[in-house]
Amino acid sequence: VRTIEEAAAGASFVQESGPEKLEIKKDLFAKLDAAAPQDAVLASSSSAITPSQFTENLKGRGRCLVNHPINPPYLVPAVELVPSPWTTPATVENARKTMIAIGQAPMILKKEIDGFVVNRLQSALLHEAFNLYEAGVCSVEDIDIAVGKGLGLRWSFMGPFETIDLNAPGGVADYAARYGAALRNMVTPPKEPARWEGALVQKIEAERDRRVKRGDLGKRQVWRDRRLMALLRHFAQAEKDIGT
Amino acid sequence: VRTIEEAAAGASFVQESGPEKLEIKKDLFAKLDAAAPQDAVLASSSSAITPSQFTENLKGRGRCLVNHPINPPYLVPAVELVPSPWTTPATVENARKTMIAIGQAPMILKKEIDGFVVNRLQSALLHEAFNLYEAGVCSVEDIDIAVGKGLGLRWSFMGPFETIDLNAPGGVADYAARYGAALRNMVTPPKEPARWEGALVQKIEAERDRRVKRGDLGKRQVWRDRRLMALLRHFAQAEKDIGT
Repeated sequence: VRTIEEAAAGASFVQESGPEKLEIKKDLFAKLDAAAPQDAVLASSSSAITPSQFTENLKGRGRCLVNHPINPPYLVPAVELVPSPWTTPATVENARKTMIAIGQAPMILKKEIDGFVVNRLQSALLHEAFNLYEAGVCSVEDIDIAVGKGLGLRWSFMGPFETIDLNAPGGVADYAARYGAALRNMVTPPKEPARWEGALVQKIEAERDRRVKRGDLGKRQVWRDRRLMALLRHFAQAEKDIGT
Repeated sequence: VRTIEEAAAGASFVQESGPEKLEIKKDLFAKLDAAAPQDAVLASSSSAITPSQFTENLKGRGRCLVNHPINPPYLVPAVELVPSPWTTPATVENARKTMIAIGQAPMILKKEIDGFVVNRLQSALLHEAFNLYEAGVCSVEDIDIAVGKGLGLRWSFMGPFETIDLNAPGGVADYAARYGAALRNMVTPPKEPARWEGALVQKIEAERDRRVKRGDLGKRQVWRDRRLMALLRHFAQAEKDIGT
């Protein structure tokens, strides 16, 4: 297969993973819409461009959506399905079933929003992490311990809502009544988030370099993938033994 | 042991886990400071009261600090050590070593801050989760998938900084240059966070109830603990097989 037209001919589901540039997405989707069978779903891996921006003028715009994988995509199950205002419900449902069939864990956005859901959640936590580090509260490594040996353990098999649902005797409404105001005070008044540049980033980079030499990042990514593979095997077994 | 004085006599490390009320902490710490051997560390489990508020007037205020465990404390390794302005470095170091000796993963705050670090990080993510739900972007369950089958997998053994350090070819500074501005735009201008009350909380509660009946929360907490125990066993094995 050497051309878009060859790749799309006969396809039932297209996953476009080109460069993250609006003009390129527009061009690719125009070609895909012309070449793919009428009932094929056209999905984009875009992590930041909302689907309405590159599908509005297409004849088959109803069958287009974003299907955003999480890095590393060959290991992380979650994908976010992001419809444009004109994506048909049947397209979303087809994409959802296709993702489940290949072992992914699709989540469905009801409408498009900048950053989608995964990166907005990640961004909220990261900005607090940068702010805490900039304020001199603790080291980069200690923030990784707070999550890696703390919050992340619970979140890795429950997510944040089930976590708080089990953190007060009466569930999430009880949790909100007990702790909501105090937790809200930590983010009110909303604070200008730290800028990810200059001396702040250099200091973080230096802390990371003491942990993983910059020349060893590739090796460390292999370690990450092996740990993720083992973690996924563990979850499959735990779901069988203990339940979901 | 029936009294504070009996419990503290001969102790080398005291972990106070009384009710989360300032007046009670003040009273308990006055009694502990009078009863415990001079070289004993006096640590509080407080999750929200900064140590300066209940130790300022104690003779032994230099040996007092907060040692905040994460729920469920009998399974989650992370603890945050929070010194007051007058906590001595030797006290922090003693607490750090004691926590490591009993298998916990201590992180050290350089100064006290409302909410400490763990709850500030959790709070940042939860408020974005509540905002996304309130805006009708996706369901409670889909937010749990975004984290539980996505972000949380990476965070559970790497933490957020190592995660982004491995998400760009050149590490964290490269990641900041590539994605910092876009991720920052998702939280700028800072938005008034959703209030955790009224109809919003009732809707979330109803979604959770469809997943776990309110009468089954206790049973579900047992499930959570069994999953956490299995996860910790898995991590111990993975660290041995693949490395930390």
